Amino acid sequence: MKKYSFKNDYSEGCHPNILEALIKTNLRHQNGYGYDDYCEEAKLLIKQKMNNDDADIHFVSGGTQANLLVISSILRPHESVISAETGHIFTNETGAIEATGHKVHGLATSDGKLKPEHIQSVLDLHTNKPHQVKQKLVYISNSTEIGTIYKKKELQELSEFCKTNDLYLFMDGARLGQALTSEINDLTLEDIANLTDVFYLGGTKNGALLGEAIIITNKKLKEEFGFHIKQKGAMLAKGRLLGIQFSELMKNELYFDLAKHSNVQAMKIKSAFQKKGFQFLSETFTNQIFPILSNSQIEKLAENFDFYIWKKVNEERSAIRIITSWATPDQIVDDFIININQL
Amino acid sequence: MKKYSFKNDYSEGCHPNILEALIKTNLRHQNGYGYDDYCEEAKLLIKQKMNNDDADIHFVSGGTQANLLVISSILRPHESVISAETGHIFTNETGAIEATGHKVHGLATSDGKLKPEHIQSVLDLHTNKPHQVKQKLVYISNSTEIGTIYKKKELQELSEFCKTNDLYLFMDGARLGQALTSEINDLTLEDIANLTDVFYLGGTKNGALLGEAIIITNKKLKEEFGFHIKQKGAMLAKGRLLGIQFSELMKNELYFDLAKHSNVQAMKIKSAFQKKGFQFLSETFTNQIFPILSNSQIEKLAENFDFYIWKKVNEERSAIRIITSWATPDQIVDDFIININQL
Amino acid sequence: MKKYSFKNDYSEGCHPNILEALIKTNLRHQNGYGYDDYCEEAKLLIKQKMNNDDADIHFVSGGTQANLLVISSILRPHESVISAETGHIFTNETGAIEATGHKVHGLATSDGKLKPEHIQSVLDLHTNKPHQVKQKLVYISNSTEIGTIYKKKELQELSEFCKTNDLYLFMDGARLGQALTSEINDLTLEDIANLTDVFYLGGTKNGALLGEAIIITNKKLKEEFGFHIKQKGAMLAKGRLLGIQFSELMKNELYFDLAKHSNVQAMKIKSAFQKKGFQFLSETFTNQIFPILSNSQIEKLAENFDFYIWKKVNEERSAIRIITSWATPDQIVDDFIININQL
Amino acid sequence: MKKYSFKNDYSEGCHPNILEALIKTNLRHQNGYGYDDYCEEAKLLIKQKMNNDDADIHFVSGGTQANLLVISSILRPHESVISAETGHIFTNETGAIEATGHKVHGLATSDGKLKPEHIQSVLDLHTNKPHQVKQKLVYISNSTEIGTIYKKKELQELSEFCKTNDLYLFMDGARLGQALTSEINDLTLEDIANLTDVFYLGGTKNGALLGEAIIITNKKLKEEFGFHIKQKGAMLAKGRLLGIQFSELMKNELYFDLAKHSNVQAMKIKSAFQKKGFQFLSETFTNQIFPILSNSQIEKLAENFDFYIWKKVNEERSAIRIITSWATPDQIVDDFIININQL
Repeated sequence: MKKYSFKNDYSEGCHPNILEALIKTNLRHQNGYGYDDYCEEAKLLIKQKMNNDDADIHFVSGGTQANLLVISSILRPHESVISAETGHIFTNETGAIEATGHKVHGLATSDGKLKPEHIQSVLDLHTNKPHQVKQKLVYISNSTEIGTIYKKKELQELSEFCKTNDLYLFMDGARLGQALTSEINDLTLEDIANLTDVFYLGGTKNGALLGEAIIITNKKLKEEFGFHIKQKGAMLAKGRLLGIQFSELMKNELYFDLAKHSNVQAMKIKSAFQKKGFQFLSETFTNQIFPILSNSQIEKLAENFDFYIWKKVNEERSAIRIITSWATPDQIVDDFIININQL
Repeated sequence: MKKYSFKNDYSEGCHPNILEALIKTNLRHQNGYGYDDYCEEAKLLIKQKMNNDDADIHFVSGGTQANLLVISSILRPHESVISAETGHIFTNETGAIEATGHKVHGLATSDGKLKPEHIQSVLDLHTNKPHQVKQKLVYISNSTEIGTIYKKKELQELSEFCKTNDLYLFMDGARLGQALTSEINDLTLEDIANLTDVFYLGGTKNGALLGEAIIITNKKLKEEFGFHIKQKGAMLAKGRLLGIQFSELMKNELYFDLAKHSNVQAMKIKSAFQKKGFQFLSETFTNQIFPILSNSQIEKLAENFDFYIWKKVNEERSAIRIITSWATPDQIVDDFIININQL
Repeated sequence: MKKYSFKNDYSEGCHPNILEALIKTNLRHQNGYGYDDYCEEAKLLIKQKMNNDDADIHFVSGGTQANLLVISSILRPHESVISAETGHIFTNETGAIEATGHKVHGLATSDGKLKPEHIQSVLDLHTNKPHQVKQKLVYISNSTEIGTIYKKKELQELSEFCKTNDLYLFMDGARLGQALTSEINDLTLEDIANLTDVFYLGGTKNGALLGEAIIITNKKLKEEFGFHIKQKGAMLAKGRLLGIQFSELMKNELYFDLAKHSNVQAMKIKSAFQKKGFQFLSETFTNQIFPILSNSQIEKLAENFDFYIWKKVNEERSAIRIITSWATPDQIVDDFIININQL
Repeated sequence: MKKYSFKNDYSEGCHPNILEALIKTNLRHQNGYGYDDYCEEAKLLIKQKMNNDDADIHFVSGGTQANLLVISSILRPHESVISAETGHIFTNETGAIEATGHKVHGLATSDGKLKPEHIQSVLDLHTNKPHQVKQKLVYISNSTEIGTIYKKKELQELSEFCKTNDLYLFMDGARLGQALTSEINDLTLEDIANLTDVFYLGGTKNGALLGEAIIITNKKLKEEFGFHIKQKGAMLAKGRLLGIQFSELMKNELYFDLAKHSNVQAMKIKSAFQKKGFQFLSETFTNQIFPILSNSQIEKLAENFDFYIWKKVNEERSAIRIITSWATPDQIVDDFIININQL
């Protein structure tokens, strides 16, 4: 029998509501390129949820695509973007940002989150104009690539710092649902819209087949974004596929319910590890946890479950990554906890 | 009542078999990024259909994406690509190719098809090395953007010319299904694989929700293509979505059946126009036709149907574009023909 | 004995005044990167000559460099530039503009000059937003690559058309000296500054060792240009080399005297051809002429002089290009005319 | 009276031999674009000096230009380059390399020099193919940006490591003359040619008005380099200017004599600081020294001399940078030493 995989949160298809909607709408004639009724409906629902009528919303197929589109549309040739070293754009997108011509400054952080002092340190090192790139954009992820989230006070400080220093703030929200439904979260979607210039709402890792909703709130960044989508090969002829999915996810609270489910499953597992006295690489409250196990414990656990060994801590121990999804069943979680307790 | 649209061949969703397969496979755990079972299956089926085990196959979401990926992965910075002026890359992709750093030479043609003499004319104008770009790639579409197709002899001559002149030959197959099932076609998928260095098989315009299968047959062009897919934001986390679709389309002859249906519907309409004595902008045998009508006839026809006015011929007359799809119903075609006969 | 070459206007070194100034200033300590006293002086002199205190002036080493710097600093990723097919950026710079990510539209013209109707034709073909690039810049050369010049009325009409259509106007002035001292010229340097948004004053082809002075008059285009110069590798550590040269050229009327000399020498030769009844490929009044000769005449002339065969007219006849420089001696011109008269 | 500046090594013009050669050759007709007699002569002399007939040599105007040309011509779109954090390409070229589409990995080092373990650490962090860029090139500077040099054993180890790991090795030789004439140097020009794939010999910082000689020894990297030079705007119409300068510098041992002079002057100053018991930021044996002074000492010294405050060490002390050139006179050095002794 195949082992259950905790390797990532995109191992399944999509929420059944989406499949039903695809069937129901299948033969209806719609305009192409995102000018269909479903995209319109999805945009409306998102605007309502963030209480902001003025935002521009665009649907694209994935996170790397969203990142390179947003960043390359904003920056002029001599401008750069600041990221944590753990930021997805820094090492996990095959140089996608540099391929559009821009430097990414990577900063070492303890928890994957940027603070004003991080950014200030980059600014301080780049005062020799015009011999150095000009920093113009700050890229953060929420939840971060290592499962942590931004608290309201942190985002407010970052937002204020960026405004003061004439920097745009861009939030990668590939797992924004998980961040906003974390038990320690105190931010709302409306806060995110107010405190950033542009962000996206991830569908791929939260119950969609594919799709991210890029939301531009800063008026200066809205202009002519569609050209960039087309130029970068990111405009789907059948944009309806994205509209239908976001429309379904936004109806009632499905998007948040799914994210919460993934968080809850991870927290149950985290709790089991904690009770057994395990340490973690970082303390997380979303759908990713990084418990530190001995090599023999990892081997034992790997007999029945798949997961990534994330980071070697020393010769005897490593952190593993357990990641849950919108679809992770209770039964599996219970089984896994039994296995943990037997370590 | 809403008018039926002959504006394009991506107004509907997808073939029902695809929806059924999505449902059936929905909760099965699969690897991400195209390493799933369905992609494997689809690749196998394509290889069988083209009788070529060695090709590398990659699935991406759309035509512009496929074009920019293939071209930018092949060319070195000082190299350029040759296209017909009607070629999709020349004017309909918001400078996607130039955005990757490469010049596109656009050539006027009568029928959207490149011939050796077209290419020779570009080579002749670029002999002042190193002050001019070096031509390295020839881009053709089959069927072309104006509905015509390449005959076997034409493709052979082009292929030979390219080999002789150290040029790669790339076929945009966004509508390759329609080309291969055209009543005048004498090419097979195997021929295409043999006579080009790289080509793609379009799904978006032939019954899929999205997806193009890039097929690389020239060994020199295979290397490290995955890096490019990731860098350009074209790698879907849930690559299964593309695998499932191409797998369904390739089972039996569904892909070709759907393409043929769209051709047949267009040919019935063409025949009706012909019988009434209408001229065409170009003679086509695929799912696009360009009849020339008087302004008042266009107005009349537009009362019940949507279509694009393609090109003004003179003050009194214009060519319109009628395009049919895998889903265009017989009933609609019959109605439309009645309308034509009443002109 | 070596034949005299009429192949181009950059076969010699530089005007002796420049060499003297290099010697005189050689050991004086100066700031690097264009912040030296000589650049300041040269800028002041140029501003006086064009009666415009507000322009930003930057010195770079060559024409292709100036072209790619100006164009890539102005355009956003989805924007394009319009040029004549004979324009230097279209076919003679190894895709330098496309390498910065932008499409160049090439237009066939009879005389190398763009007119409003040429530009309108490109605009008319690019109305399908956002599927096509957005035109934002018009590139013209004066004198053109085929020796013709813009008259005041033509430049005024072009300037007005660009303003009306939200297009910037950029003049390549690699041979602007020759244009402004042509016998049929009615434009002043001040006119050029007023009617374009950015242009440059060529030194390389008018008595300097190297160097072009980029002059930005449109306030919107001035911002942060230095970053681009540095990023593209165009910022000389010893910027004094450019400052010293332009300073010398701008003193008294040296720049214009040199240009006029090259024109006068060409016109003497043109007159000799005319008197003998020769036709020309285009009628020019600067330092390039394109007389049409029979093959045997070309052969005869080539015994004593070097020049390019420019364009085959028919099997028996071709146009040759004769180009004179700031340094072409009277004696050589007289000899050449004797040779012409003997044809 | 103006203070003497130790701010950089490009504050003067050029060695008088160059000016004399410019005068002597001024009116001789030469081919453009580097096909002149002087470039040929200079290439021959360089090949003799490095005892290598097969290298390809190209002259360009500056270091940033050389760096971006070499790197962008070598790398495919998904490949990256490794540099020390102090490397010129990492922070002092306004993102020139990223602007050509490539990521630069910056590594913290103690002395500005890369060792195999540095490079290995980058390789270890980039094993997730194709989600991460592929390292293909190692960039080092000799002397480094902070005045240190590579010893033969170090360069051999690096060269071997690169070969083993399928990486190219590129040496920025903006100050290679200074490195090769340092009192602790044990490398020859021939060694450099043998141990790297491509490097350049800096003229701008060693007695030329401008100019770097790019030397390509790896056959695979030679092909079609001229196209890149032209495309990046780096091809001078009057290439003779570069040929004449390198020809003069390479005659006898002028190039090395000038470099040695600059080293000797710096070492005299270093010795004076050492005798007074000053510490240094790094131990250098070329024309740059970084003594650490108290704020009041810096203030005192700055009364008569210009120099950069390089790095704050603590509230009371900073390192300054003293840099000498081919033209720094003995008298000035003596005066400066008197000032040091009075601190």
